Amino acid sequence: MGELVFVGLGLFDEKDITLKGLDAARAADSVFAEFYTSSLRGTTVATLELMIGKAIRSLTRKDIEQGSEILDAARRGSVALLIPGDPMSATTHVALRLRAIDAGIETRIVHGPSIVSAAAGVLGLQSYKFGRATTVPFTGDTFRPASPLDVIEENRKRGLHTLVLLDLTEGGEFLTAGKAIEYLLELAAERKSDAFTADTLACVLGQVGSDRPRVAAGRAKDLVSRDLGRPLHCVIIPGELHFMEKEALVKLAGLPPGH
Amino acid sequence: MGELVFVGLGLFDEKDITLKGLDAARAADSVFAEFYTSSLRGTTVATLELMIGKAIRSLTRKDIEQGSEILDAARRGSVALLIPGDPMSATTHVALRLRAIDAGIETRIVHGPSIVSAAAGVLGLQSYKFGRATTVPFTGDTFRPASPLDVIEENRKRGLHTLVLLDLTEGGEFLTAGKAIEYLLELAAERKSDAFTADTLACVLGQVGSDRPRVAAGRAKDLVSRDLGRPLHCVIIPGELHFMEKEALVKLAGLPPGH
Repeated sequence: MGELVFVGLGLFDEKDITLKGLDAARAADSVFAEFYTSSLRGTTVATLELMIGKAIRSLTRKDIEQGSEILDAARRGSVALLIPGDPMSATTHVALRLRAIDAGIETRIVHGPSIVSAAAGVLGLQSYKFGRATTVPFTGDTFRPASPLDVIEENRKRGLHTLVLLDLTEGGEFLTAGKAIEYLLELAAERKSDAFTADTLACVLGQVGSDRPRVAAGRAKDLVSRDLGRPLHCVIIPGELHFMEKEALVKLAGLPPGH
Repeated sequence: MGELVFVGLGLFDEKDITLKGLDAARAADSVFAEFYTSSLRGTTVATLELMIGKAIRSLTRKDIEQGSEILDAARRGSVALLIPGDPMSATTHVALRLRAIDAGIETRIVHGPSIVSAAAGVLGLQSYKFGRATTVPFTGDTFRPASPLDVIEENRKRGLHTLVLLDLTEGGEFLTAGKAIEYLLELAAERKSDAFTADTLACVLGQVGSDRPRVAAGRAKDLVSRDLGRPLHCVIIPGELHFMEKEALVKLAGLPPGH
């Protein structure tokens, strides 16, 4: 009976995997990957295949949900499933792990860097001051969820920061920080919320995990058109700032000192 | 003018560093490390030195706060500072980075796996359902902070999970999950809180980042004496559980199905 190892790829390129993760991928009889929960923007599957020395079979969300191909391979031998960031952040990963356990397959996680801690670190914000995180999805005329603004309001009431992750599609579309802030401002205007306005302090991040992340802090309205390079982007709406957090936003993200 | 690179070491042993982090350490003119914010329990400094091929100078909290030794080295050349987990989680790291910037030194972060995302992943809990995290310190007759219980109560009111990190000393003492739960139960009894009782569902974790983390889920009182191996340990107090989160706790952490 084989083994299924969930391997985190980290944030940006092929060198954000850990030594343990690379060992697990190289030792596996077959290597799969999924890029629908996130994406490594600084590399390609071909580069990962060269580094690992094996072909990588990229799976869609449907493949992972259906699961038979990867579970069959894990019954026959050892399988590594490469996942951007830190594995198990999506329910589909957990569901797959539980099905593997039900099938008597050994499972193991090799952790990787996650945007959840990296985004705070890049800006010098303290992780214990973050409330729950939220995600802004692609919206339409009929699909306009208010939950991201609800989470920001709930956190700000308590002086807590909010990490706002941005949706992507399997087709390769990535929501930008600017579009997400525009949407949050629309929601806030519709409900006349003062928890998030054009003048609210916000932070935008791009290229996190690269040698030169692009970050900016300032009034929400001033960040809508900020160039962060190609996505992935994310947004942080700070709560109350410790003086050192404020100094960090000034020196690391160009926050106007008087803000 | 040199560079100061903050390199995350990840969770457990010398193989939890990323390829990018290892490159940065090997390329640096001098390599420092700190182990007062956390610790790599699965390896030694000597093993890290062999892997990197350089001597590592371990710094105390006082050294990092004082900062002159590492900043002087970064003025002369390139410096890597190795930090367990994902860097910048401590204010002392951020303060050092800001001082380096003031001194005209280039700074960069190489991210590593963090307990903040790993603890949730190991148990199959959804990261977006976590409220703010808290830390249980070593307490004494006069030092008995109530803030950890406050955070748990605030999160549970909203159905959110709480990650409870555990303090360590530079002398090498590590608070255990059992002691932390005992302390939380004492606090809850003193304030007659029903947010955390002997029967409250809790999860305890040890050896996270190793091939075989030790985890358990059950009533708080049943976990006090659970053997998790040598620390680092941490604790999660779940809020409302999605059915798949509950199934995960049953299959991954031995939660009694009826709980």
